[in-house]
Amino acid sequence: MLSAMSEPRPPRIAIFDSGIGGLTVAAAIHATLPGANLRYLGDTARLPYGSKSAETVSRYALQASRALLGDDGADALVVACNTASSCALPALEAEFDLPVLGVIGPGARRAVASVAPGSLVGVIGTERTIASGAYGHAIAAIAPNLAVSACATPLLVALAEEGFFAGPLVDAALDAYLDPWLGGEPPAKLGALVLGCTHFPVLATAIAAWLSRRGMPNVALVDSAQAIAEELAMRFPAARTGRGAVELLATDGLDRFRRVGSRFFPLDNARLQLVDL
Amino acid sequence: MLSAMSEPRPPRIAIFDSGIGGLTVAAAIHATLPGANLRYLGDTARLPYGSKSAETVSRYALQASRALLGDDGADALVVACNTASSCALPALEAEFDLPVLGVIGPGARRAVASVAPGSLVGVIGTERTIASGAYGHAIAAIAPNLAVSACATPLLVALAEEGFFAGPLVDAALDAYLDPWLGGEPPAKLGALVLGCTHFPVLATAIAAWLSRRGMPNVALVDSAQAIAEELAMRFPAARTGRGAVELLATDGLDRFRRVGSRFFPLDNARLQLVDL
Repeated sequence: MLSAMSEPRPPRIAIFDSGIGGLTVAAAIHATLPGANLRYLGDTARLPYGSKSAETVSRYALQASRALLGDDGADALVVACNTASSCALPALEAEFDLPVLGVIGPGARRAVASVAPGSLVGVIGTERTIASGAYGHAIAAIAPNLAVSACATPLLVALAEEGFFAGPLVDAALDAYLDPWLGGEPPAKLGALVLGCTHFPVLATAIAAWLSRRGMPNVALVDSAQAIAEELAMRFPAARTGRGAVELLATDGLDRFRRVGSRFFPLDNARLQLVDL
Repeated sequence: MLSAMSEPRPPRIAIFDSGIGGLTVAAAIHATLPGANLRYLGDTARLPYGSKSAETVSRYALQASRALLGDDGADALVVACNTASSCALPALEAEFDLPVLGVIGPGARRAVASVAPGSLVGVIGTERTIASGAYGHAIAAIAPNLAVSACATPLLVALAEEGFFAGPLVDAALDAYLDPWLGGEPPAKLGALVLGCTHFPVLATAIAAWLSRRGMPNVALVDSAQAIAEELAMRFPAARTGRGAVELLATDGLDRFRRVGSRFFPLDNARLQLVDL
């Protein structure tokens, strides 16, 4: 059909995450590329990935991505989960013949772009992401003279999952993690803090307020979700407008997925479906 | 051999848990029945169970218990995980021809024994355990006139896993969960609080201090771990003395299992092994 040829089909972007937090990435992509068709899979049956070994994370990421891509495939596979991005990208790239985009690279590039030379870049994330050193390696590859310091903050994942985005409990968690870590740094040195977990954007306001209280009001909070959305927009500029479809898959607990997920993404018009891995 | 017949072999007790928290149950059993041989499996690759559906929890519990029992079997299977105890016992009892003991029944009996008539029994646990109503049903079956009120406190699991047993962060979490829940109750009415998750015994001191600060210093904290250890001691009285072997299996992350697990159980002399499910 001529009309179909003159209007190219919208890009299909597959988004894989360990669970619900990756919906912050889906939301950023949807806002930037409303014309793209999004298909998201959250491996809610086996979350969290952040405390698991690299081998297990790779195996789960492969299984989940096979289910997500199905027979139709996609124009790009986004690994929204920082933990999986930090250790499963090589396995995914070897298996699938399509662009595989993790969140580490875009987040690292944005961090480097947002700080002055000589600054310290801080990274917070899950145990596995921090142990991988992935952000440090990615930043060192493009800006070898920047100092990078990383801190595992696993409880922040649970707080975001449970809907605690601000308040005394979040502040107490930030005290417990960030004070021992940043306490010895001159406040002026920290130029950027990478929110190295897909759950953390919902805590950004509380984190910024905490940094202000500690005399660090000008730290750039780097959100990988926004960074990867902008990199996708350069690949698929035609999808900057339009109205694509959103399809969501989860491996367990659709009720909980809908309830918690609606904190991260407007789920009203999305199709939600259970898959068994 | 005559000597083997005159000295019966020590009982083999298999203990299944979703992860590391069940080591509080293993520790209580080991302290009460040091002569028993314990074999523990923590399904660390797929924890936490507390936010998963009942169907998924049952499926995982069956798979994990098959691996735990292996060809040798056991004299009893203890389901240390409250979540699995609340929804997977029927499936386990149907599959295995040996006594299957969950932690709900012993905990409920101990709660009833520790309160005066007319008291309120509180229960805290994971989302799934509380949604199951298992403690309420078990208490109602033996003491229908007791009032039971339950509250899901999922973050307490993550706090215990991460080694936060007391301090401002734990207090802030208790404020966030218990104040809205117990705020309207006359302090005198709460007779017992069931620690309905295997992770919670490590938080008992902090919980008791919190209750004291709120004018409830006499609430009995009910620890299912101790309750089930005492029920096992009645079945296997000969194992109250002796020196049994302890074998620990986990489905992922042996390093983390050793590091976190040693907070709950003395792991120095235990054999630790990875199994793939």
